[in-house]
Amino acid sequence: MFELLKTDTSSRARLGRLTTPRGVIDTPMFMPVGTQGSVKALDPRELVEMGTQIILGNTYHLHIRPGLEIITAAGGLHKFINWPHPILTDSGGFQVFSLAKIRKIKEHGVEFRSHLDGSLLFLGPKEAMNIQRVLGSDIAMVFDECPPHDSPPREMRLAVERTIRWAQECREQPRAAGQMFFGIVQGGSNAALREECAKKLVAMEFDGYAIGGVSVGEPEPEVMKAIEFTEPFLPANKARYAMGLGTPAQMVELVARGVDLFDCVLPTRVARNGTAFTSKGTVSVKAGFNKSDFRPIEEGCTCYACQNFSRAYLRHLLNVGEILGLRMVSVHNSHMFLKVMTDMRAALAAGTFAEFRREFIANYVPTRKVLSARLETR
Amino acid sequence: MFELLKTDTSSRARLGRLTTPRGVIDTPMFMPVGTQGSVKALDPRELVEMGTQIILGNTYHLHIRPGLEIITAAGGLHKFINWPHPILTDSGGFQVFSLAKIRKIKEHGVEFRSHLDGSLLFLGPKEAMNIQRVLGSDIAMVFDECPPHDSPPREMRLAVERTIRWAQECREQPRAAGQMFFGIVQGGSNAALREECAKKLVAMEFDGYAIGGVSVGEPEPEVMKAIEFTEPFLPANKARYAMGLGTPAQMVELVARGVDLFDCVLPTRVARNGTAFTSKGTVSVKAGFNKSDFRPIEEGCTCYACQNFSRAYLRHLLNVGEILGLRMVSVHNSHMFLKVMTDMRAALAAGTFAEFRREFIANYVPTRKVLSARLETR
Repeated sequence: MFELLKTDTSSRARLGRLTTPRGVIDTPMFMPVGTQGSVKALDPRELVEMGTQIILGNTYHLHIRPGLEIITAAGGLHKFINWPHPILTDSGGFQVFSLAKIRKIKEHGVEFRSHLDGSLLFLGPKEAMNIQRVLGSDIAMVFDECPPHDSPPREMRLAVERTIRWAQECREQPRAAGQMFFGIVQGGSNAALREECAKKLVAMEFDGYAIGGVSVGEPEPEVMKAIEFTEPFLPANKARYAMGLGTPAQMVELVARGVDLFDCVLPTRVARNGTAFTSKGTVSVKAGFNKSDFRPIEEGCTCYACQNFSRAYLRHLLNVGEILGLRMVSVHNSHMFLKVMTDMRAALAAGTFAEFRREFIANYVPTRKVLSARLETR
Repeated sequence: MFELLKTDTSSRARLGRLTTPRGVIDTPMFMPVGTQGSVKALDPRELVEMGTQIILGNTYHLHIRPGLEIITAAGGLHKFINWPHPILTDSGGFQVFSLAKIRKIKEHGVEFRSHLDGSLLFLGPKEAMNIQRVLGSDIAMVFDECPPHDSPPREMRLAVERTIRWAQECREQPRAAGQMFFGIVQGGSNAALREECAKKLVAMEFDGYAIGGVSVGEPEPEVMKAIEFTEPFLPANKARYAMGLGTPAQMVELVARGVDLFDCVLPTRVARNGTAFTSKGTVSVKAGFNKSDFRPIEEGCTCYACQNFSRAYLRHLLNVGEILGLRMVSVHNSHMFLKVMTDMRAALAAGTFAEFRREFIANYVPTRKVLSARLETR
């Protein structure tokens, strides 16, 4: 289901194609995040226009609201949200460990209280796979434990052991027709644990492999290390997905380290604060210096926002609280993330990825503030 | 500039065509409200798709933010907001009297404090016309005084006298090339004042006439009376515009009383509370009874929201606070208001307006709550 079309000679970057029940995904690819069944502020037409091939949904959030009964009655998640293209669903593991209030890890999952109303819920391999079966996503994720990055070694090891055991339990659950499923490698910044977890999951033969427990508060070099500790143990003929990452520059560096798929809330989240991504880094569209700047957010950008509106107008909209402002920055940012992927695929196809990477990183000035925005909640 | 194409035999309803510098407006027509340079939650493409021919802008709000300097630098309001089609600008009179904090009526206008930061500002005929000239709207409105509907007779008379004097002062101001301007008839529910105000303004020969001071808190029968007291004194060969009105049923009744143009914040304002307009009246999309209702907001509706999403999905989006929810109800409501106009024009052309009116009013059940939403602020 994953075809490796080309491997870069200067790095571990790959050009590929992932075939899912509802369509083909060209990799490297970014997946816009539709946590609650909507990519924040965007509609399906806008998503298609900017080149979206697959979006994310979230087991934890959709299970709480609107609940499975309604999505079942709708005929599945695709029909409920009117997105006929591929959907990957996260298993809820990450949210159980980051969002839920009180939790108790048990043999076959986690008992926790909803972040919303405190009601007692239970999510484990069986439940997470069942929910994803009912949602009918094209790619399901196994239910894993995502420990804090600074967990003591003993706890990190326990989490990895549980993640492996739960992955096996997930394997035994029924899935929707044609539904693929990916394992998730945990192990923090511990090379031995990452290797062990990767090898055990690979032995279970999933349709793809995610690298989890990255960018959960650790410094960027640790993120890169976690990827480097994991990637060599993943099979070349399966897709690799770095969960919850990253900035444009990080994604370029992760592709160079052999990653194929990304998802991140950054483009829409920072848009709602009036911040836009450009090839030179982020810019505050809302800032006073854009008051009379009648250029688009990024010259040459083909997104609907840049084709139609100036920074001055968008700054005004954000300044007076008009929804069109955050909508348009969300359009631009999501388009920009997808464009970086398109450019990487073109460079990989042309054999010029090394130059692309060098130039992109030289132009792009990272912002600390933006990185921290990822961690607020998700 | 206004062509009267047909007059209904059963009522005072008219089919017409208003030609402005940037395009033709078929009447009866509804004008979506873009107070601060954006029709709330909608983008220009969505507006065009739903059949919008003209939108409103607001002198008071745009003067405060972003201010004339920026709009001038942008090359006018059309360019600033990227709306190449007709724009009507309100003069700011209504906001000065409803929104501004402290105000002092003077000979040539009103001194007031900004509702935003309390800064001292002055708006009168000269200033309002100058701002509208710089904005470059296709239709400018005269600067009027809009007194409370329950003002004592003496004050109502003074307001009408000032309105007439200020209209004359507006007449003497320069306008943008091709810019039309409309007079505004005041006089509350007083027949004699309405007649006097209308006659004096008609003598000044404006390009069209608005009926102001309606739906400012008075009961609906008073609204209809104010229109009936005014309309007979307006020339048949000029467009008539009922300011700030109304619900779909009210608009049908106002067309039957000879009104051609409408503007109202209702479609987008109630959308943000999760309320939709249908041919049967309003419905709370957000309400629990829509949880598993997989029909569109209105069966047969051709708007983007009804063509793509169910009530159940929109209810979920509104319930979890996703922006797409209020966006889609805004799309539906604005489309619905424009559709009522399209249907009225078709009925007028076919000579079936009486039947259309009877059926529409019989089907439509008005809601008190919705009427009060108009008055919150604007």
